[in-house]
Amino acid sequence: MAEDAPAARTPNDIVAAAPAADWKQIAPSDLLVMDLAPSADGKPRRVVIQLIPAPFSQGWVGNIRKLVAARWYDGIAVVRVQDNYVVQWGDPEGENPTKAKPLPKGLVAVDERDYVASGALDIGKYVWGGSGRKPAEGDVGVTRPDSFRPSMIFSDPYAQLYAFADGIPVAVQLGTPAGSGAQRYSVQNAWPTHCYGMVGVGRNNSPDTGTGAELYAVIGHAPRQLDRNVAIVGRVISGMENLSALPRGMGDIGFYKSPQERVAIRSVRMGNEVTGLPGYQYLSTDSDSFAAYVDKRANRQDDFYVHPAGGVDACNVPVPIREAAQ
Amino acid sequence: MAEDAPAARTPNDIVAAAPAADWKQIAPSDLLVMDLAPSADGKPRRVVIQLIPAPFSQGWVGNIRKLVAARWYDGIAVVRVQDNYVVQWGDPEGENPTKAKPLPKGLVAVDERDYVASGALDIGKYVWGGSGRKPAEGDVGVTRPDSFRPSMIFSDPYAQLYAFADGIPVAVQLGTPAGSGAQRYSVQNAWPTHCYGMVGVGRNNSPDTGTGAELYAVIGHAPRQLDRNVAIVGRVISGMENLSALPRGMGDIGFYKSPQERVAIRSVRMGNEVTGLPGYQYLSTDSDSFAAYVDKRANRQDDFYVHPAGGVDACNVPVPIREAAQ
Repeated sequence: MAEDAPAARTPNDIVAAAPAADWKQIAPSDLLVMDLAPSADGKPRRVVIQLIPAPFSQGWVGNIRKLVAARWYDGIAVVRVQDNYVVQWGDPEGENPTKAKPLPKGLVAVDERDYVASGALDIGKYVWGGSGRKPAEGDVGVTRPDSFRPSMIFSDPYAQLYAFADGIPVAVQLGTPAGSGAQRYSVQNAWPTHCYGMVGVGRNNSPDTGTGAELYAVIGHAPRQLDRNVAIVGRVISGMENLSALPRGMGDIGFYKSPQERVAIRSVRMGNEVTGLPGYQYLSTDSDSFAAYVDKRANRQDDFYVHPAGGVDACNVPVPIREAAQ
Repeated sequence: MAEDAPAARTPNDIVAAAPAADWKQIAPSDLLVMDLAPSADGKPRRVVIQLIPAPFSQGWVGNIRKLVAARWYDGIAVVRVQDNYVVQWGDPEGENPTKAKPLPKGLVAVDERDYVASGALDIGKYVWGGSGRKPAEGDVGVTRPDSFRPSMIFSDPYAQLYAFADGIPVAVQLGTPAGSGAQRYSVQNAWPTHCYGMVGVGRNNSPDTGTGAELYAVIGHAPRQLDRNVAIVGRVISGMENLSALPRGMGDIGFYKSPQERVAIRSVRMGNEVTGLPGYQYLSTDSDSFAAYVDKRANRQDDFYVHPAGGVDACNVPVPIREAAQ
């Protein structure tokens, strides 16, 4: 990790060396603090979720804020844990019209079109994607959305390319090339991707889009087939192991077979309602530190790694999070 | 699922309808049966691992057979559970020269070059990969390794393309185009990919390649940076939840902090040594059923899915497994 041997740096080294200016504070009012019932041996189980920022999924995010304000989530439960897929929580009686917990007034029905953010989007400084060519010096993580060069190895099997928008991994569809000389593109559509730890909105069959009363977190390999088919409303930034290590449900698609297996949710609060909550920061995905981190995720070369991968997929770049003073 | 509405079929429908001839029996002598100590509530915890077939990693597979024959694994433990990464098991005293369990004689030191299988490889009938174009009818899953058309959406951010070799997901590097007319390629190199549930060989820094005495299974998003850097020796085909739902280790890189947290491994036997073991079959990755399954994993279109993904990555195509008579 010597300064004169940058090739041997690891992704963690780059994160550790990132200057303070490259970290962004997450507003406590954008955090959900979900306290599960303590574990069998009495340990508290807290999960902290960052709500997704605009322009993504804001109709559902608004509903979730109303559900928290109404204390609606207090007393619901984790009802489903499907291995290599999702942990899901909601009203265990939600499908029973006589026993379902009434939803608060004022929730909105969001349109399916809102799975995708459209139009001239500012999706951040760095965009990755392209055709599979081995990158040349200066290729990696150096493009802006309005000057995309389709020449990198960060291809996305589910979209034209990927980027990070305010810390969120997003898939990108480009508009018609514009301008002269080198091909220049604008971003036409972008949508958040179902990476490990992302939180989405359970729903019934289309055209239902869900309210936000039923939520899930991804606990396996990224199920990207869900992109543009369900709303992503945030990501777990602390306590992921309190969801991912839960016993798997042995019923159909991972539902718990008996009520006794369910894990009670004691309360869900906004971060600004919780005394003593640490502050949380993410490594700005517009920063040069993040670009170097992505590059190193794609090209490990140190005492352990024999063969740099030469590429990396959108969901194999976990956005670094750290605790910090509020 | 009506016969006249094939567009609404799900991947599971295709698997359920696959003819018997499309399923391949896994020889019990190619299975590792690992019995962990029972859970706190007395439930047995069995994990069944299929060893990887030739031409991949056979030096390490040979070592593992010797370690089983010597009963060397009996009494070791799960020592590390890192969220979204790996569960690892081995000799807890393996790093302690005076307390380490002696390895049996006859283990071989395998060369790093054996992370990759080279030469004229038969990697099966179906190969996916390419440049990102939306596929035309007939494009999907119709190519042979010797007639690859680089025109599909199944791109791999870590290699030129991917395929399945005898049920194992592999990344592929092509040789120089040969032949006339449409571009024709041969397979030059192929290597198994670190998908969810794959089992690899723990090792020290390069050039050490590990013996097989320390193993791990992937329990999160595919850490493909490990491809060509560690040997993959198999995949979990039953009992994955007995590894993936273990409590996470809170020490450095997920090691358990105290010996009490470790999970004892009672025994590891070859499948043909275990009375009453079910037979296991995988859906032949050379079959038309598998090609239809991959296509449907890439293009979900049913009552739930609004927007077919239009692509799928190598690790988001779990190879179907079923129990069957031996």
